[in-house]
Amino acid sequence: MAGNSRDPGRSVTARALSVLTAFDAEHGRLTLTAIARRAGIPLATAHRLVRELEMWGALERDQEGRYAVGLRLWEIGLLAPVNSRLREAALPHLQELCRTTHDNVHLAVRDEVDAMYVEKLTTPRAVSIVSRAGGRLPLHATGVGKVLLAHAPASVVHECCERGLARHTPYTITEPGRLGRELQAVRSRGFAQANEEMTLGNCSVAVPVHDPDGTVVAALGVVTHSARAEVAKLVKPLLPAAEGITQRLGEQDRSGLASLPR
Amino acid sequence: MAGNSRDPGRSVTARALSVLTAFDAEHGRLTLTAIARRAGIPLATAHRLVRELEMWGALERDQEGRYAVGLRLWEIGLLAPVNSRLREAALPHLQELCRTTHDNVHLAVRDEVDAMYVEKLTTPRAVSIVSRAGGRLPLHATGVGKVLLAHAPASVVHECCERGLARHTPYTITEPGRLGRELQAVRSRGFAQANEEMTLGNCSVAVPVHDPDGTVVAALGVVTHSARAEVAKLVKPLLPAAEGITQRLGEQDRSGLASLPR
Repeated sequence: MAGNSRDPGRSVTARALSVLTAFDAEHGRLTLTAIARRAGIPLATAHRLVRELEMWGALERDQEGRYAVGLRLWEIGLLAPVNSRLREAALPHLQELCRTTHDNVHLAVRDEVDAMYVEKLTTPRAVSIVSRAGGRLPLHATGVGKVLLAHAPASVVHECCERGLARHTPYTITEPGRLGRELQAVRSRGFAQANEEMTLGNCSVAVPVHDPDGTVVAALGVVTHSARAEVAKLVKPLLPAAEGITQRLGEQDRSGLASLPR
Repeated sequence: MAGNSRDPGRSVTARALSVLTAFDAEHGRLTLTAIARRAGIPLATAHRLVRELEMWGALERDQEGRYAVGLRLWEIGLLAPVNSRLREAALPHLQELCRTTHDNVHLAVRDEVDAMYVEKLTTPRAVSIVSRAGGRLPLHATGVGKVLLAHAPASVVHECCERGLARHTPYTITEPGRLGRELQAVRSRGFAQANEEMTLGNCSVAVPVHDPDGTVVAALGVVTHSARAEVAKLVKPLLPAAEGITQRLGEQDRSGLASLPR
């Protein structure tokens, strides 16, 4: 229907959304010309859409005339259940884990075939890592990713293998058969680990976070220096923290804050 | 121009955005009917726009058929400089403050005549407070709000007073003259405090956070129980934390991550 003059609304909405997708972590500030090019729309159209989006607060303009995602879009994005329900429930537990482990602490959900980081807390002692809140990493090469993949439908595992298991280090699991056995092990022992499979020198351990109804909604993990890693010691504080998050999710749901029909 | 058939794009974009503004903290999940009603658009239009927004990931539908803000909109919202630049720079300092004070720690920016909470960290010992990340509170009745107002243009102070200084407790400052003197004191002593002015029993103390160019971009505050509050002791860890945030903002800018033209 896009481009159909009898249904201009659809294509206009799609084009307005394409302006937003011109932005990403590496392209946080864009000129109008760059927006038009990245969104694949004519400059005049970009000009009109950007003006509307700016008026509404979805975009904001800096002193040099470049555009960035605006305060109002950030504000509305925070209403997403992944933030308003999951992250809010998890944050005190993430802080506590960070305090006790002095390592990077992660909360991630699965979006299609990516692990998506909902929050990352770090401390001065923690190793440097590539994740950030809102960022994506592969499912097969990280602790949180393996947890999410181990509890995903078989079709998701299949699709990951079809797309190819990218090798990030010499230790990344790239054979589908070996990945399948690894995911089985993750399910049976209740946690996942990844040893230098994403970044040389780093080791991650992760456990599932269950919704009160029993489904796995997220993964909670720590990333530390391989040389410091004692798996049993890392898993120990993760399990009660994951249970604590489940409990808080239940309390939220009962209080009706997150799910009341209106 | 809205509704002008020769410029359907503008009104369509505006209507698509109005669908998003149907959601707020008290209305996180909405039926299609509720969206149409709250957005002030016909049901058929709402149906079409919601379908497009859902396909794109700006909205998601739960098992009961209600809609919520989607993962993709949350992801794009996180690209806003208030998160990707300010919150990222501040988070380690907020964690450290939370660890040392055991109180609620806040980072807020000003949006027109509201204080907007960018992040809130809490601990089990902290008092219960009404703020949340993405939430808004009045400028005249909170520690962070007074800091932001003290460093805002005079026109903002004037507008706050014109709108009326709402009384939240018997201790809220509601006289413009008294507020002006209070803001002068905030500027001269370098920090703000609010004693039970927003919530009875709670006291907040806050300091400005400067951009490397010297402008005040945010306020950093702690909220504690009035009975526990020793202002000097509360201000002490805030000042080096605010300086640390300024330093990290400068490092980010120099590394070009946040401001490189593309």
